[in-house]
Amino acid sequence: MSGHVVWLTGLPSAGKSTIAAAVAERLSDDGRAVQLLDGDAVRAELCADLGYGRADRDENVRRIGYVANLLARHGVTVLCPVVSPYRSARDAVRERVGERFVEVWVSTPVAVCADRDVKGLYARQRAGTMTGLTGVDDPYEEPLAPEVVVPTHEMSVDDAVELIVAALR
Amino acid sequence: MSGHVVWLTGLPSAGKSTIAAAVAERLSDDGRAVQLLDGDAVRAELCADLGYGRADRDENVRRIGYVANLLARHGVTVLCPVVSPYRSARDAVRERVGERFVEVWVSTPVAVCADRDVKGLYARQRAGTMTGLTGVDDPYEEPLAPEVVVPTHEMSVDDAVELIVAALR
Repeated sequence: MSGHVVWLTGLPSAGKSTIAAAVAERLSDDGRAVQLLDGDAVRAELCADLGYGRADRDENVRRIGYVANLLARHGVTVLCPVVSPYRSARDAVRERVGERFVEVWVSTPVAVCADRDVKGLYARQRAGTMTGLTGVDDPYEEPLAPEVVVPTHEMSVDDAVELIVAALR
Repeated sequence: MSGHVVWLTGLPSAGKSTIAAAVAERLSDDGRAVQLLDGDAVRAELCADLGYGRADRDENVRRIGYVANLLARHGVTVLCPVVSPYRSARDAVRERVGERFVEVWVSTPVAVCADRDVKGLYARQRAGTMTGLTGVDDPYEEPLAPEVVVPTHEMSVDDAVELIVAALR
């Protein structure tokens, strides 16, 4: 049996990694084979050559999608929290994986993300020490038909986990 | 249970891919979860940025090792036919994977490889239209303590498969 590829897309600090880790723990407790492929961690392993321009972001998404698909074909459910701002790159992963691709839009509004600012990116952008921040001065193309929408500013992590796990049945 | 990472190293046209495919088929027939990660195929998916200098060859080996290890941790036996000319890069994969790493040295001599010349690389090197051919004008560091040695010029594919499968028990 194939596993799912659960692709969590959204702005920086939207809560993608937190929710992905909580879903991974829940599925693992249920006895499922699970792998977390965090965007930042995978960048270090597979994409050290890539930057944050559009082509490089798309290539990053493509490589993660390749690895996620390999694992899913062997029954592993793979959680991929990756900003992945461009629709066409996400759709290419969907096409590769097929019907077991589950797109989760972590739809936290930019104002809430900027307030959380887990990595200090929003502060750096405001201070003028970085540019190209997704959702601020770089594009984010919202999913048109995601399988799940998770508005973390209005929903607990537990409720988000329930929604996503329900979509995997 | 973890799967093995079977790493087949050797010169171009040594027979790595042929033997890897035969081992994959045999294990698959036995009901094992198997994934072939062919060096050339993976280059296209994960390493389009990399060339054939030492640093790029080592990075190529590192990325394949990362993916192979992820799969093996989920019970998949992964076959990696990759020239991987440098000992330190192979040993780094061994260190990452641990005791389920099986290094197979496909030890076909360069004269036999040049005679087979499946991809026409030896002819191109002789004609002066390429340089940096492993084992001819680029280094190949032979394994010092491989788990299996497969001299394909003296051994059938079937016998090679038997040797490798025996090492996975």
